[in-house]
Amino acid sequence: MTDNLLMIAASEIDANLFYASRFLAPDSFIYLKLHGRSYLLLSDLERDRARLQSCVDEVIGLSDLREKAKTQGIERPTEIDVLYLFLSEQGVFELRVPGNFPIESADALRAKGIVLSVREEPFFAERAIKTEVEVRAIRKTQVAIEAAMDEAVRMLRASDIHHGELYYEEVPLTSEAVRRVLHRVLMEQNCTAQHTIVAGGMDACDPHQEGSGTLRAHEAIVFDIFPRSLETRYFADMSRTVVRGKAPDPIKRLYETVLEGQVLGISRVCNGASASAIHEEIVALFESRGYTTGQVNGRMQGFFHGTGHGVGIDIHEPPRIGKGNGTLKTGEVVTIEPGLYYPGIGGVRIEDMVLVLEQGCQNLTTYPKFLEID
Amino acid sequence: MTDNLLMIAASEIDANLFYASRFLAPDSFIYLKLHGRSYLLLSDLERDRARLQSCVDEVIGLSDLREKAKTQGIERPTEIDVLYLFLSEQGVFELRVPGNFPIESADALRAKGIVLSVREEPFFAERAIKTEVEVRAIRKTQVAIEAAMDEAVRMLRASDIHHGELYYEEVPLTSEAVRRVLHRVLMEQNCTAQHTIVAGGMDACDPHQEGSGTLRAHEAIVFDIFPRSLETRYFADMSRTVVRGKAPDPIKRLYETVLEGQVLGISRVCNGASASAIHEEIVALFESRGYTTGQVNGRMQGFFHGTGHGVGIDIHEPPRIGKGNGTLKTGEVVTIEPGLYYPGIGGVRIEDMVLVLEQGCQNLTTYPKFLEID
Repeated sequence: MTDNLLMIAASEIDANLFYASRFLAPDSFIYLKLHGRSYLLLSDLERDRARLQSCVDEVIGLSDLREKAKTQGIERPTEIDVLYLFLSEQGVFELRVPGNFPIESADALRAKGIVLSVREEPFFAERAIKTEVEVRAIRKTQVAIEAAMDEAVRMLRASDIHHGELYYEEVPLTSEAVRRVLHRVLMEQNCTAQHTIVAGGMDACDPHQEGSGTLRAHEAIVFDIFPRSLETRYFADMSRTVVRGKAPDPIKRLYETVLEGQVLGISRVCNGASASAIHEEIVALFESRGYTTGQVNGRMQGFFHGTGHGVGIDIHEPPRIGKGNGTLKTGEVVTIEPGLYYPGIGGVRIEDMVLVLEQGCQNLTTYPKFLEID
Repeated sequence: MTDNLLMIAASEIDANLFYASRFLAPDSFIYLKLHGRSYLLLSDLERDRARLQSCVDEVIGLSDLREKAKTQGIERPTEIDVLYLFLSEQGVFELRVPGNFPIESADALRAKGIVLSVREEPFFAERAIKTEVEVRAIRKTQVAIEAAMDEAVRMLRASDIHHGELYYEEVPLTSEAVRRVLHRVLMEQNCTAQHTIVAGGMDACDPHQEGSGTLRAHEAIVFDIFPRSLETRYFADMSRTVVRGKAPDPIKRLYETVLEGQVLGISRVCNGASASAIHEEIVALFESRGYTTGQVNGRMQGFFHGTGHGVGIDIHEPPRIGKGNGTLKTGEVVTIEPGLYYPGIGGVRIEDMVLVLEQGCQNLTTYPKFLEID
């Protein structure tokens, strides 16, 4: 028997709900799949738009259900009252919900006798397997990333070095200025980005630090760009590390090691590959090169994040490539993004997105990999 | 006694968590307030950045807690295991959570004997009352909106009319093209926008329709622009309705009526004002002018959304100005945005953001209101 499903969320921030409904709304609405038929229950304000845009079988306005509830003696029916009424009419009293289902709605439904149980992530296992249309959408977002990165590299190349600091058109070139240029190019391609990383020197040693202040020559600058297309809602994700001017030897060695690990990781991707084995092989390579991971003076250094993650309607979605279990499957789109971070040297991360194939993978990232910009 | 509080969410999409922690992260982490002291429990990857950026009293890495749990005989401690361990150490077994707290974590904690109860929205009542710093942040986002709107109006003014359609620089001027220009200007001001509405003609009759295709002269075009600042995370929100060329009389009359209602609404805003009374007064004005609201041929028309909402870290946050209860309070920032929508005529919405004062309000929107662009 197929599960009956329930979600209550805003599809704007809930990828499962957007995946199932293809209807984007900033406020919370109800999705049901009962006996194989899908429904949206939502406010009158969204009803007509949902009928046009969503992919569900039936769109029902909450006010119609509220009127019905009133005829049954409920004076001021809540959203949960009308949902319960609808479920009763359908004879459904047991539902599966996602792990992030809101406790407030859960408690109210359970108080009425509805049995809710969590279906663990992935709520829709098929979401990890991308269709051709989805791969095209991801690739289109990636094209925008590469156009933006091109522009940033052009700025770095055109910058002058004074006392170790970069100057572009006579003013100090900052992480913020480069980020703004990246965002402008992305927006021109109808992509929106947040938390884009342009982190040089010590900033780059914290993998999620966005970076600030004037960029310097001869330091590793990590770029991590992961916009969403406003047209398709699909993300793409790419990291590159560059140095303006000559790279000192410790940075060169760090870069070559990360690149070796990244190329190794990509070479291991195929249908059936163990995600943790890929991760552990890269960890072992880094260790064998003398790059150990652990806490030093209360701060993590080395390779202390996962090797990769799925990309789709969420920037981070299953599968994960790290310590956990699981094997990769044909049609998944995953990042391979090892990094090494040492406060005394700098941070390096290199990231491509690949499509898992029966044999090997297809790299969806076409941007070249180079360290020095002279 | 003060409540002990728990949230588990990604602050990227959870405004309460960002409000309480001032720490922005794309992945889920734990916030606690126990006996007045605030904590973040999060992955090593985020720990150091959280120590630098968050406003909580203490940041604890999950791996440290995991090691401790292992010494107590839990072989593979989950996030909930270590949270339970931490709560036990603090002697806290009863917590208040927000309504959107995830059922999966709730069920797991309750299974261990932790008592969770929902604190209804507003989870932090004080979030609705904006500090001076917050008002400045909102106003700064509003400045970006007005720069973007200026540019859109310039394009409309510069456009030519051929057979009723607008042409800009010899090509048809579409909703998409105008939206892209708005987004570019917003991004230049470090603001990111989604779902920006540039909806002409029949598109504008659905208040959340974003609009598509070539814009036409002599039709009402609704703009609704609500970006977030990437610097402060604060939104602003403005709507305007314009016509390129002469407006037909039915549109003129619709516009004048909406404007009258909007000005009336703003004039009623002050500390202690009833939110529903403001809404009902506008509804009554529209009715008295012959603009009725209801379903016609299965489609809503008239004034079928609320009059306004709070604006802050969320685009829609308390208070609501609509049918519900509640009074406005000094320091709240709310929109006043009545609209009228008739498929035979078009849609009109006019929206300002105002700061509630002891007496009256301060309009944070300085963009002029005009219908025709000649």
